[in-house]
Amino acid sequence: MNSRTLESSNPFSKGFMPKTLNELADHVGGTVLGDGKVVISGIAGIDEAREGEITFLSNPRYAKKIRETRASALIAAQEGEGFNRPVLLCKNPYLAYARIVRLFHEETHPTPGIDERAIIGKGTKIGKDCTISPFVFIGENTEIGDRVIIYPFVFIGNEVKIGDDALIHASSSIRERCIIGKRVIVHCGAVIGSDGFGFARDGKSYYKIPQVGIVQIDDDVEVGANVAIDRAALGRTWIKRGVKIDNLVHIAHNVVVGEDTVLVAQVGVSGSTEIGNNVSLAGQVGVIGHLRIGDNAMVGAKSGVAADVGAGKVVSGIPAYDHRDWLKTSMTLPKVSEMRKQLHRLLKEVEELKSKVKSGSKK
Amino acid sequence: MNSRTLESSNPFSKGFMPKTLNELADHVGGTVLGDGKVVISGIAGIDEAREGEITFLSNPRYAKKIRETRASALIAAQEGEGFNRPVLLCKNPYLAYARIVRLFHEETHPTPGIDERAIIGKGTKIGKDCTISPFVFIGENTEIGDRVIIYPFVFIGNEVKIGDDALIHASSSIRERCIIGKRVIVHCGAVIGSDGFGFARDGKSYYKIPQVGIVQIDDDVEVGANVAIDRAALGRTWIKRGVKIDNLVHIAHNVVVGEDTVLVAQVGVSGSTEIGNNVSLAGQVGVIGHLRIGDNAMVGAKSGVAADVGAGKVVSGIPAYDHRDWLKTSMTLPKVSEMRKQLHRLLKEVEELKSKVKSGSKK
Amino acid sequence: MNSRTLESSNPFSKGFMPKTLNELADHVGGTVLGDGKVVISGIAGIDEAREGEITFLSNPRYAKKIRETRASALIAAQEGEGFNRPVLLCKNPYLAYARIVRLFHEETHPTPGIDERAIIGKGTKIGKDCTISPFVFIGENTEIGDRVIIYPFVFIGNEVKIGDDALIHASSSIRERCIIGKRVIVHCGAVIGSDGFGFARDGKSYYKIPQVGIVQIDDDVEVGANVAIDRAALGRTWIKRGVKIDNLVHIAHNVVVGEDTVLVAQVGVSGSTEIGNNVSLAGQVGVIGHLRIGDNAMVGAKSGVAADVGAGKVVSGIPAYDHRDWLKTSMTLPKVSEMRKQLHRLLKEVEELKSKVKSGSKK
Repeated sequence: MNSRTLESSNPFSKGFMPKTLNELADHVGGTVLGDGKVVISGIAGIDEAREGEITFLSNPRYAKKIRETRASALIAAQEGEGFNRPVLLCKNPYLAYARIVRLFHEETHPTPGIDERAIIGKGTKIGKDCTISPFVFIGENTEIGDRVIIYPFVFIGNEVKIGDDALIHASSSIRERCIIGKRVIVHCGAVIGSDGFGFARDGKSYYKIPQVGIVQIDDDVEVGANVAIDRAALGRTWIKRGVKIDNLVHIAHNVVVGEDTVLVAQVGVSGSTEIGNNVSLAGQVGVIGHLRIGDNAMVGAKSGVAADVGAGKVVSGIPAYDHRDWLKTSMTLPKVSEMRKQLHRLLKEVEELKSKVKSGSKK
Repeated sequence: MNSRTLESSNPFSKGFMPKTLNELADHVGGTVLGDGKVVISGIAGIDEAREGEITFLSNPRYAKKIRETRASALIAAQEGEGFNRPVLLCKNPYLAYARIVRLFHEETHPTPGIDERAIIGKGTKIGKDCTISPFVFIGENTEIGDRVIIYPFVFIGNEVKIGDDALIHASSSIRERCIIGKRVIVHCGAVIGSDGFGFARDGKSYYKIPQVGIVQIDDDVEVGANVAIDRAALGRTWIKRGVKIDNLVHIAHNVVVGEDTVLVAQVGVSGSTEIGNNVSLAGQVGVIGHLRIGDNAMVGAKSGVAADVGAGKVVSGIPAYDHRDWLKTSMTLPKVSEMRKQLHRLLKEVEELKSKVKSGSKK
Repeated sequence: MNSRTLESSNPFSKGFMPKTLNELADHVGGTVLGDGKVVISGIAGIDEAREGEITFLSNPRYAKKIRETRASALIAAQEGEGFNRPVLLCKNPYLAYARIVRLFHEETHPTPGIDERAIIGKGTKIGKDCTISPFVFIGENTEIGDRVIIYPFVFIGNEVKIGDDALIHASSSIRERCIIGKRVIVHCGAVIGSDGFGFARDGKSYYKIPQVGIVQIDDDVEVGANVAIDRAALGRTWIKRGVKIDNLVHIAHNVVVGEDTVLVAQVGVSGSTEIGNNVSLAGQVGVIGHLRIGDNAMVGAKSGVAADVGAGKVVSGIPAYDHRDWLKTSMTLPKVSEMRKQLHRLLKEVEELKSKVKSGSKK
């Protein structure tokens, strides 16, 4: 078995240099249970893994699959029943898995250089070792840091700032004066700095309120595909360090999103709402405007947040309230029609009882 | 009346060669009731149709409009009251309508050819009679089948495969290594192969899990405008033959969507969920991760699926449960506040009754 | 303090020429309370405003901030407690604010001209003083009005019409034969004229119904980022004068949206639904197909409209019903689990009472 053979064992990913399990354990800071000399030449899901590959068990619901996998080794948090092959033990198997994937699958991007078919405006400065693809448009007086990679069909307006090592995928747009931090990843089709949705009533019609603020995105943020983040009316819409934004999320003008907060796909946040650090908004959540969501709060999928949420609170529902109460309500909802019938029967029976007791006491 | 005149009768669509009703019946496999020699030179909705055009009745709620339409003929499943003009009878009038529209309105696309202002990477192979528009970017070692049409501003990464007769609309992106089947239609702004949303906690922050899998889209799939389909973490996100995806849908990494399944606009499907064949998810439905939805299941609009759904089941609600129970609950919900008041009154009355009965029995 | 210094006081917006408060009052048609000669050189939110800037109070919940703001003047509807600085009084402070912002922040767009790196098809006519950016693709026989601004990566198909003073942002797509009115603004990534989602069952699979109609957008409409508006099956999808569409909204084929109606972010409207004038659909609302929503109706955030809504009605919920009833239901929902327990206790107690009363009456 050579690396060439191994490469073809997984048609979906690029080949890599094999490592021993001991080497992998060193890389992720774990320990080996069993034969550390086994050669690992790939990583795959528990169903798809083949001989020579390592797999992982981060979710206990897949434990029974351990016996069946063809993988040659396993990443796990602790020894378990039926582990009949070498194990890489580590505290956080999901993180170890991520590091091993990155070890094997180096990202490939176009060779650095500024393609002559890109358009770069007057006064714009491009840092070292950037990749500016053909069909890129960059406006005037913009500053691009070092090692920034910009894919085709990206529009960058005037006076934008983009930090070092940012990665801007195809067909995304970053409008004038927006600020993008270091190592920010912007996925295809994302729009940063579109006009906030602001109109003043002027008789029957609307008068457009100029949206003259910006979007500021701090370091290590990821912005999903076809996301839309509106520029502020005045001031800034602010996405702080480490925020992760999934696909098709809408963030309105003047919203603030705190550090390491996660916005899952199709979330919508209305204007001027402030979201704390380490908050999690699950898929399709909506938040109305001018609210505050405290640090570490969690909002369940599809919920509608219509009032402030305290730090550490877990809420669900439309409108959202305490998640445990919501769970109880959810289990009861399929019964409310039956409840109504029972209630109506009771109303009648109690009336009957009242008249009986009344007539009884009269006797 | 000549075809030139007819052409101008509908400013919204292109002209076509007139046909007799008999010819149309032959084309769709139907029969004619009445004068089969009437000349039909267009097709339009029941309100908009003019003399010389054919219209259709697929929805019984519009039956009363039959008398008023100015159309010269009618497509219908069976003869009906008030049909005072020739009828093209066929089992599936909606399908017949679709075929007649296609007969009259041939799609127009740019003339085949590879525009010199397109960029095509090293090692990339383009099939016969393709249309590669100006401002198209195709990466390296990619394979494009025959008669593929690619509109401007389309980004196609390295090592992508696109099947014969695919139609890729403007500003869509297909990232590296993804596989697109034959006759697939990708609408404007769709993103195929964006990174899945995967992060491992690493202390306070997140560590990005490389998303090294692909998206595989099989034959005859349609992908709506501004859709986002994430590539797999490992392995593939898989959209099987005949799936129809409406606008602004989100499909997360490692999701599998079965054959002929329909995902209506703004649906979101979380990671690793497997959806069977002929499933229908109505508009704005959300599905959490790692679930299975069986063949022929249906999920009502705006529902949130939080548990497996068996084959053939119809569910609605957040979280989703049996659709008929949900309907009953829906009718009851506007009454729950009143129910609560009745319940509180009953609680008091029953307490009173209890004490009366107790005191009564003591006497 | 000179205009240069002032410019730097707000890093997020462009500089402008200072005005006296009297001049601003003349501009917006208001009156001055206090010193009208104070020089105003900027406008900012109540928290961010600095000396020399004007701020505004449109929402009473921020009234207590009036004492703390560093702004040199205030826009307000009426005199209020704690106003210790000059005030620009006007009936509609939000509109006055909008006008003052526009006064100070003139929009900057590229200099008019047709860039030679744009592609313009045969028979296409471009009006006076248009800005056609590099990397723009315009098809054949299209008509572009005067002073239209088209940003890079915009795709415009054949036989499109675009009215005077339209503003088309980067990476948006306007497909063949669509009609765009005067002063329409299309934000980045918006798709106008994608195929409607129509398929006829043909045995197990689907047959695509050609979507040969158009989208017609009338004057003064704004279309948000990454919006998708489908072309009609036959006829037109019609967005009437003054409609404002927020980001990531989906509008299906043959929908009609009435004048001055507002569709907030992530709304979805299904096929053939007709929405009246001055309607408001709040964020993430979904509307099923073939409905009518009357003039001036309002639909609460996240609601699902499943039946016609009368003119002037306010509805919420999934499915939507009277908003006041929905509010009552919403306050009751967290209690339904407790209600069920109370109900079950009552059922038992009433049974006991019944038997006691029965046996009591037997004695």
